[in-house]
Amino acid sequence: MRFLLRTFDPLKTPYLFQRSRLWFERVVIAPERAVSMEGQPLSALSSPALVVDIDKVKTNAQRMIERCQALGVQLRPHMKTHKTLECADLMTAGSRRCIVVSTLAEACFYADHGFDDIIYAYSLPFDKIERCAALSEKLDLFQVLLDHHDALQQLKRRPLKDGQLWHVWLKLDCGNGRAGVLHSEPEALSLARAIAGTEGVELTGIYAHCGNTYSCTGVEQIQAVAQDTTSCVLQFMEKLKAVGITCKSSIGSTPSCSHPVQDMSKLSEVHPGNYIFYDVQQSMIGSCSLEDVAVRVLTRVIGHCPQKDQLLIDCGWSAISLDGAGKLPTGYAIIEGHPDLKLSSMTQEHGRLEPISGHLDYSKYPLGTLLSLIPHHSCATAMMHPVYHVHSKGRLLGTWNPTRGW
Amino acid sequence: MRFLLRTFDPLKTPYLFQRSRLWFERVVIAPERAVSMEGQPLSALSSPALVVDIDKVKTNAQRMIERCQALGVQLRPHMKTHKTLECADLMTAGSRRCIVVSTLAEACFYADHGFDDIIYAYSLPFDKIERCAALSEKLDLFQVLLDHHDALQQLKRRPLKDGQLWHVWLKLDCGNGRAGVLHSEPEALSLARAIAGTEGVELTGIYAHCGNTYSCTGVEQIQAVAQDTTSCVLQFMEKLKAVGITCKSSIGSTPSCSHPVQDMSKLSEVHPGNYIFYDVQQSMIGSCSLEDVAVRVLTRVIGHCPQKDQLLIDCGWSAISLDGAGKLPTGYAIIEGHPDLKLSSMTQEHGRLEPISGHLDYSKYPLGTLLSLIPHHSCATAMMHPVYHVHSKGRLLGTWNPTRGW
Repeated sequence: MRFLLRTFDPLKTPYLFQRSRLWFERVVIAPERAVSMEGQPLSALSSPALVVDIDKVKTNAQRMIERCQALGVQLRPHMKTHKTLECADLMTAGSRRCIVVSTLAEACFYADHGFDDIIYAYSLPFDKIERCAALSEKLDLFQVLLDHHDALQQLKRRPLKDGQLWHVWLKLDCGNGRAGVLHSEPEALSLARAIAGTEGVELTGIYAHCGNTYSCTGVEQIQAVAQDTTSCVLQFMEKLKAVGITCKSSIGSTPSCSHPVQDMSKLSEVHPGNYIFYDVQQSMIGSCSLEDVAVRVLTRVIGHCPQKDQLLIDCGWSAISLDGAGKLPTGYAIIEGHPDLKLSSMTQEHGRLEPISGHLDYSKYPLGTLLSLIPHHSCATAMMHPVYHVHSKGRLLGTWNPTRGW
Repeated sequence: MRFLLRTFDPLKTPYLFQRSRLWFERVVIAPERAVSMEGQPLSALSSPALVVDIDKVKTNAQRMIERCQALGVQLRPHMKTHKTLECADLMTAGSRRCIVVSTLAEACFYADHGFDDIIYAYSLPFDKIERCAALSEKLDLFQVLLDHHDALQQLKRRPLKDGQLWHVWLKLDCGNGRAGVLHSEPEALSLARAIAGTEGVELTGIYAHCGNTYSCTGVEQIQAVAQDTTSCVLQFMEKLKAVGITCKSSIGSTPSCSHPVQDMSKLSEVHPGNYIFYDVQQSMIGSCSLEDVAVRVLTRVIGHCPQKDQLLIDCGWSAISLDGAGKLPTGYAIIEGHPDLKLSSMTQEHGRLEPISGHLDYSKYPLGTLLSLIPHHSCATAMMHPVYHVHSKGRLLGTWNPTRGW
């Protein structure tokens, strides 16, 4: 069955969501990927290991689907956090349509596995025009993003075969301050008009990332940024309308989509990604509770250093990343069930745990003790692992293999 | 041809080094791994990309071989920086013997490809005893490392088949302050005696990592730490001799082995690793010059942000890592040929370049401009890449595929 979510209105077409609930019931581990550890406890894994709680992942996926359904806006989940087929299936409720990716490697990976309606949400890289053209010509709806006239020139120089159109989103900077043409600059409107007026190119939509929600604390601040970004995009849509241009609109970030404001229903789409796993950072921003975080790094005690009042663990930066710079009260991660411990420093394959106050009681941590780390930033931690171990209630179900590279 | 380097004395047996020089001449890219980009310039690569200068790698490998030969000490190169077959071949001069690894995944990878005489230099992890036993029973000389009586108990509980011996190195902490039993503690000698006196187990050697050379600046400081560590190990060897125990000894770190002290000739082995690539950190320590660094991350300009006086590049932390915490005068890396630029911050797929002083001249950096980043820490940067692109004098030769995981 092949269909495109771009024509799908979640309020008018309840079918997909009924289907999705049934679909969530079946085990999402492809049989050919299941390894012989199925049914074993997490303690059977060698460490370090990234483990994924499938029940939390399903809940996180389902909640975002329902939140967007209630709001009346199309969900276009971002794949950059997990980069797996299985999470993509859960986030799209099995449709394999309407996703966003951050690398062309992800785009190719998903396209190769039957996904379509993909936005490659990255300022069009000039070295990848030919690969983008190939995907555009292969898929029903491969979409690129740009924020500069020079990028439009690149597309003009490479017309697609058989009169196909380049589907282009204009990246708008609504205060995030990374990529995108600044919404307040006249340049923004002139670039939108240039895209819309270029032969062989279609202005598909206006895209904004409200990454500035990452500096928020609490729902009120998140919603203030979400409202600003939404208002900014909607005002820009009005400007476009005034010059006779209509197209889609999309904003995204996990904080804003975890606590959407009502005006977001006036957008065509939203594109959060991290919510599938969440992490300590998101819990501190206020996007989720710590209980919603679906991933852990399992590690074991491999050394006692009484002269330094430290425990050595087999999780270094190669397994959890240096993200967060160790600035949490508990250092580079939260040590689940041990609020008195801090992951204070790491080398490639070693982590050092210290007591936050007082002294270590080594009898509580014999060599081999299994500990569970909640990552500061799940995107960064997941990237360090060539395989994810999936479990339900602590029993292993199988493994997921993410894609890598660019 | 199969032989073990443990019986090889580089001073008495010049054959291997004659052979190695010839061996260095042939192209080390396995034909089946070569891709169709052979012969193309680096600018043909999509970015970000890790590129390896094969000529520098060969020089770095050869210099360390010759340095150890001159010193009269066996070189046992560490694989953790690159994790490829090709670099391992260069570092072992084609013998595929006498290496050290930091993960069991590396040990299995090299064993599967005909390598032997491998030290798994990691405080024996209790969850991996069975996998270590399997490697011990499969290889001629698989060696483990421990620093705790409990680990010795684990080995006793799993005798190897056919009366084979567990080959055990005792990890000594000579001031580095990470893993290892502190050399000055009576525990160190008692553990060595326990290993030597345990049935089914052989005390193969004493192993120390002088990672404290990483806080040095300049040859004098490096050599002071190298001397301290060497003296410390040699004194411990004397203590062992006094109780009737003889075994090998090994110290390592790229700084100490790049500038060895004469007393290191009294050791059996040295085990540096990073020197195959080197990096900015090593050049600042004084291990090498910046010209010796063999790896780069290629990146392109993908955005102009005049309101922030920044350039956006397509290298985020997913391609260069967060190692170094951005504390270089030029931020997270050195931008080759552009000493006026600083890689000031990154997100997953974006880097921000700023001028160190004055303002950016955007006409010098049109979108698509190719830049080359010299990594702060090549171990951390290489780990982010599923494939390395190998070149000679800027012309691509092929790709190398590192192993990953644990």
